[in-house]
Amino acid sequence: MTLRERMSDMGRSARHAAETLRLAPSEQRTAAIRAMARHIRAAEDAILATNARDFAVATGRHDRLALDPARVAAMAAGIDVVADLPDPLGHELARWTRPNGLDIARVRSPIGVIGMIYEARPGVTADAAAIAVRSGNALILRSGSDALGSARAIHRAVAAGLVEAGLPAETVQLVDTPDRDAVGLMLEGLDGAIDLLIPRGGRALVERVQREARVPTLGHLEGNCHTYLHASADPAMAASIVANAKLRRVGICGATETLLVDRAAAPDLLPLVVDVLPGCELRGDAEAAGIVPMTPATEADWSTEYLAPVLAVRVITDLDEAVAHIARYGTGHTEAIVADDPAAAEAFLARVDSAIVLWNASTQFADGGEFGFGAEIGIATGKLHARGPVGPEQLTTFRYVVRGTGQVRP
Amino acid sequence: MTLRERMSDMGRSARHAAETLRLAPSEQRTAAIRAMARHIRAAEDAILATNARDFAVATGRHDRLALDPARVAAMAAGIDVVADLPDPLGHELARWTRPNGLDIARVRSPIGVIGMIYEARPGVTADAAAIAVRSGNALILRSGSDALGSARAIHRAVAAGLVEAGLPAETVQLVDTPDRDAVGLMLEGLDGAIDLLIPRGGRALVERVQREARVPTLGHLEGNCHTYLHASADPAMAASIVANAKLRRVGICGATETLLVDRAAAPDLLPLVVDVLPGCELRGDAEAAGIVPMTPATEADWSTEYLAPVLAVRVITDLDEAVAHIARYGTGHTEAIVADDPAAAEAFLARVDSAIVLWNASTQFADGGEFGFGAEIGIATGKLHARGPVGPEQLTTFRYVVRGTGQVRP
Repeated sequence: MTLRERMSDMGRSARHAAETLRLAPSEQRTAAIRAMARHIRAAEDAILATNARDFAVATGRHDRLALDPARVAAMAAGIDVVADLPDPLGHELARWTRPNGLDIARVRSPIGVIGMIYEARPGVTADAAAIAVRSGNALILRSGSDALGSARAIHRAVAAGLVEAGLPAETVQLVDTPDRDAVGLMLEGLDGAIDLLIPRGGRALVERVQREARVPTLGHLEGNCHTYLHASADPAMAASIVANAKLRRVGICGATETLLVDRAAAPDLLPLVVDVLPGCELRGDAEAAGIVPMTPATEADWSTEYLAPVLAVRVITDLDEAVAHIARYGTGHTEAIVADDPAAAEAFLARVDSAIVLWNASTQFADGGEFGFGAEIGIATGKLHARGPVGPEQLTTFRYVVRGTGQVRP
Repeated sequence: MTLRERMSDMGRSARHAAETLRLAPSEQRTAAIRAMARHIRAAEDAILATNARDFAVATGRHDRLALDPARVAAMAAGIDVVADLPDPLGHELARWTRPNGLDIARVRSPIGVIGMIYEARPGVTADAAAIAVRSGNALILRSGSDALGSARAIHRAVAAGLVEAGLPAETVQLVDTPDRDAVGLMLEGLDGAIDLLIPRGGRALVERVQREARVPTLGHLEGNCHTYLHASADPAMAASIVANAKLRRVGICGATETLLVDRAAAPDLLPLVVDVLPGCELRGDAEAAGIVPMTPATEADWSTEYLAPVLAVRVITDLDEAVAHIARYGTGHTEAIVADDPAAAEAFLARVDSAIVLWNASTQFADGGEFGFGAEIGIATGKLHARGPVGPEQLTTFRYVVRGTGQVRP
């Protein structure tokens, strides 16, 4: 069988599994998720051994690839959290009766078959499987080749959990080859089998998806996030928020990459900011560099998602300029204002068109767990269907169920 | 200037207009919509004269192209209906406080710039403009070339209404050329300016969109709709619903194209159905043709959206077979069951995964007006973002607005 034939088979199996999942009771899906967590705990030794082999031969960045007993335990615990989340399915989102007596209900439903293309993060295999089953969807996973062994070991445990609960093993399938052509086939949609693609990876993957995808995608694009210090900002709060937004974890998409500071407050605030960013390289415009020494910023710095201890710094005139800078260089992910002046803050919150806008809080709160969603498989930066953290509820759609008594349309 | 440059300029103008619209007060948008209706009424003579010229030289199907005074009046009245609809913007869809005190609100927001590619229906120009302004979006319209003159005349009135209310004329732009390359440029997204594309047209357009689109689309695909007569169906209700579902208007996407009839009831029901479908060609499987004379159906009939007085008829064993037939041949648009047995009806409503499923009502109710949405610019058949009738609310998205008091993430 060619790769195309094998992938088409996976698509058909996923479609069948999705029909089962869509009608499977909530309790059965919950039992499957719990069983998945149990099987992952039981397979810890096998998972760690495979992961060690992956790690030994991996070619790419390694920080997210490595597993240890604590990370496997956290993976299983994360799955149990998803099992406890409220079932997003079956709720009536709205229901009304028309003057002619037609009773119309808008009912939450699964999307169907979700394709997930990701890189060397073994944990995504488990998170995505749990969230897909919670939301009643079938899933086709395509792991980065560096983590394929680990993904296989985790997937084996996931499949065992599904079967134990009486659900099809094909509910969650893993593309079992490092062949990059598999990505292209998924982007084509596997003969219509894939309803939604979720890519999670670096710029090369994102660009390939934008070029080649023939099915809807829920983009997890770059997070070029901004923190804006308004002239009215409380200095201590500004320093504490900037330190957290930049350095708590530099590699996550909600990390602040550019700091905007009002001219009136810059001489006071910038020295404080420098103090709380030890080991962080600052790249500033001429005005910022005139207040505290820093590397000169180039035009490219305003557009760069560093994912590293580097911060671009720009001194600006006012809120208008902050909004304009973000509209020009931002990626629509997450932006924060630090301000004591409520009118300025509300203007910022209204005018900045990003998935998440914050007042007096760190951009690193851009996270499904921090929002109370329990789990997420990414932060959507597109505007369609879902925006911000993507948890089980965001992987649903709805249908209209109309009950009549013989009505015909005039 | 090349077409590409002109279209890129349109994209940039639309993006600027969208920023203004997003923050324009509800009353200003309402005033603009009312002014659009007034200017259309005032321009009736010019619109009709241009339409007559379009009609005289048109190459394609003409039934939807022709305007007359009544249709222009209906167009203006439809716009006034949209002006009266509740503003979908600014509502808090949800708001909650996290244990750390963060106050998170999910706020409804416009999508931004919507591109609409349609064929020879002049009325779409007015409907789409009104719905876009109601939902705070900018709009780029690409009319079919057969209706371009009519679209220009209507667009002139729309732009006059926008300017009268103080909104940018570029809020609604019309691609002022029949050059088909303009469609390709819109499918590429105009350098990122278009957030959402809505194609409305025949199979050739739909296929081109699926092949070439680089931006999210809200597909208005085919409606291969089914009506299923369960063995428990009331015969009189079955006949009345089938007559309406097929013949009320044969050219709309919610018209029934295939009739499925339970074997147990077929000898009773099929003769009644034939009686209420005068002038309708029936294409049946062997079993149906054995009960009443009809043209033999071929495999292609099960997949055909006739949009004509033709009905495919199939005799089946039971509800399982109905569900399987619809899953195989349906387009996920609208399907109905006629049944007295509530258990059978509820099973059908749960198991058929279409945007709209009805019990004891005509499939021709698949319409935004009939749903109480006031207006629609199509019925979405995809599963993402919006499903079913697309009115102003369906052209919105949301943002998370987070208010803190200095919180940083642990």
